Amino acid sequence: MSHRFRVVYRIQGTGEVAEARAEGLALEQTVELPEDLVPAGFIREEIVGRVEDMRRVWDGLGPQLNPKTWDVTVSYHLDSAAGELTQLLNVVFGNSSLKAGIRVQHIETEDDIWPFLPGPRFGVAGLRERCGVAEKPLLCTALKPMGLPPEGIARLAYGFALGGIDIIKDDHGLSDQPFCPFEARLEACTAAVTRANRESGGNALYAPNVTAPADQLQRRARLAKEAGAGALLYAPGLGGFDGLRLLAEDASIDLPILSHPALLGGFVAHPASGIAHGALFGELQRMAGADASIFPNYGGRFGFSREECGEIADGCRRPLNGLKPILPSPGGGMTLERLPDMLDLHGEDVLLLIGGDLYRHSDDLAANARRFLAMLGR
Amino acid sequence: MSHRFRVVYRIQGTGEVAEARAEGLALEQTVELPEDLVPAGFIREEIVGRVEDMRRVWDGLGPQLNPKTWDVTVSYHLDSAAGELTQLLNVVFGNSSLKAGIRVQHIETEDDIWPFLPGPRFGVAGLRERCGVAEKPLLCTALKPMGLPPEGIARLAYGFALGGIDIIKDDHGLSDQPFCPFEARLEACTAAVTRANRESGGNALYAPNVTAPADQLQRRARLAKEAGAGALLYAPGLGGFDGLRLLAEDASIDLPILSHPALLGGFVAHPASGIAHGALFGELQRMAGADASIFPNYGGRFGFSREECGEIADGCRRPLNGLKPILPSPGGGMTLERLPDMLDLHGEDVLLLIGGDLYRHSDDLAANARRFLAMLGR
Repeated sequence: MSHRFRVVYRIQGTGEVAEARAEGLALEQTVELPEDLVPAGFIREEIVGRVEDMRRVWDGLGPQLNPKTWDVTVSYHLDSAAGELTQLLNVVFGNSSLKAGIRVQHIETEDDIWPFLPGPRFGVAGLRERCGVAEKPLLCTALKPMGLPPEGIARLAYGFALGGIDIIKDDHGLSDQPFCPFEARLEACTAAVTRANRESGGNALYAPNVTAPADQLQRRARLAKEAGAGALLYAPGLGGFDGLRLLAEDASIDLPILSHPALLGGFVAHPASGIAHGALFGELQRMAGADASIFPNYGGRFGFSREECGEIADGCRRPLNGLKPILPSPGGGMTLERLPDMLDLHGEDVLLLIGGDLYRHSDDLAANARRFLAMLGR
Repeated sequence: MSHRFRVVYRIQGTGEVAEARAEGLALEQTVELPEDLVPAGFIREEIVGRVEDMRRVWDGLGPQLNPKTWDVTVSYHLDSAAGELTQLLNVVFGNSSLKAGIRVQHIETEDDIWPFLPGPRFGVAGLRERCGVAEKPLLCTALKPMGLPPEGIARLAYGFALGGIDIIKDDHGLSDQPFCPFEARLEACTAAVTRANRESGGNALYAPNVTAPADQLQRRARLAKEAGAGALLYAPGLGGFDGLRLLAEDASIDLPILSHPALLGGFVAHPASGIAHGALFGELQRMAGADASIFPNYGGRFGFSREECGEIADGCRRPLNGLKPILPSPGGGMTLERLPDMLDLHGEDVLLLIGGDLYRHSDDLAANARRFLAMLGR
């Protein structure tokens, strides 16, 4: 039996139209030729995508199954992905991303057929172990604003670490600005967090932002490792999903990775096109190697719905070819008031990202952090 | 005067709402803090984005200016982009991509403030020179389908080169599959195109697809250069926009780059979110260093409109901080019948990408290619 992987697409159209679109997609994503020009044999039988299943779905807009909305499963020969995440993304959705009314709902895999995608190095259990927190939600915050010098950022990191925040990450907008160079910030923040941990007996991790030009990514991640950072922040929308894979695979780095959603919004903007929330912020992040996936929480200043956030958490956790489950990390305008409902939705295996609110309650950052931890029963 | 760059966003909302959204965006893209928590001085005065202009626009949907659609110009301190394309993308649209009703319309620059973005190495004039074609449209085609072995792909390349196609590119789905490895294909195709050029006295360029895992990109591009390839194909949606910059900047490579739109469709799917066609397939490609930008032609099997294609061509050509103009390259289901209207829209400085139709007319690929060239008056 040849190894194949499957993608579930949500396709708009009445029966015959949807069927023709599905067949067209199976050609478009592989041979890119009209059906009558496809050579017989291996190419026609194995390389052209196979429409395996078509079923009507409830699209969330009315009370019943929508006759114009279908979930179509297409399978592809594993070799078409060439053992590369970049080419896998191309087979999944390269050209068809440019067509309206086709949305990637799920990427399915079978056991042991993804030797080129090792997935998350740490996952939920590994990240909890590095944080030294076996149960209850984990807490994360961001160092900001852009414009502060390294010593100003490090002062914040010290306060948050002293207060017991588990992961203290750079705001994703801190890269290598002249007013806050990467290496100076890295040195100042790792020193500050180490000092706070020593004083508190805690185990806070500092996660520098290593999103960088293509030829700088590995260098910055290795510098972070050498300096004693406890995790990394990377934005695949800015640097590419394969950068995530590269960081996760590099045994000399060996640090948990938080994935940031910057610039990925376009994929989810149109409800009938692009990539579904659970596939983009869950499945793909895991396949690429993230250990936690940051996304905008519902009810905040971004427009994600509660249901979409639930789908993301599901994509972070559901069985997926033996890939470790990872932590959903809702953030963005989150407030104390919403906490109980969020825990109800996500359960305990969640990395809560608290931003501005931690800065607001008082000038004593450590005390603010302790208030949040207390609310989590920690 | 401090150097700033400007981004034009299309924002949905009645006057006061749009104004509040614009001010929120200026914070979101920089300090990521509520206004009352922004420190005074340098950060408040220089780092926070400045709303420079707001004007109602015609949104193309009705006969008049729409009171709910605004073009808002926001300026940012150049240093916030840290001299990095990845961080520039973040400042332009990182978090705000996740909000509905905000679309990047244009990225504006001032002279001499982009030392970190050298732009296209060749542009229209340089690419024409490499092709040895001073006027009339240039012609490009793709080698396919995926599944053919290197010698099968090379046989096609030979026929197209003999027929006088200017640029013969890998289909973007050919990467490094076991049935058609990159290096074997590169060797076979460069040999085939060299032989055809010798026989015809022509000057066809072979453009291998170097879209690859992050740690393979430069290696493949250098192999291509050494083997005698005449150009490169790269898909920034798969490998990241900064990969384009890296290829364009590398003096040891020094080859024209064709940019492919795979996976970029999500950004343009929603008319009121994402990135406008002209900015995504024109301005950004040029800033990153592409010499030609491939996009789906109107009227083909993709849904782009004639007007959107015109905007892309405009983004490839309009004055932009001294960056060289590049060639728009419409493709995707293009037919002979549409040619006159396309030339009317794009003029002569265009790289026409012909796919399946070149394979269809007869088994004699060289004769098919000559028919197309004749239609272009060449």
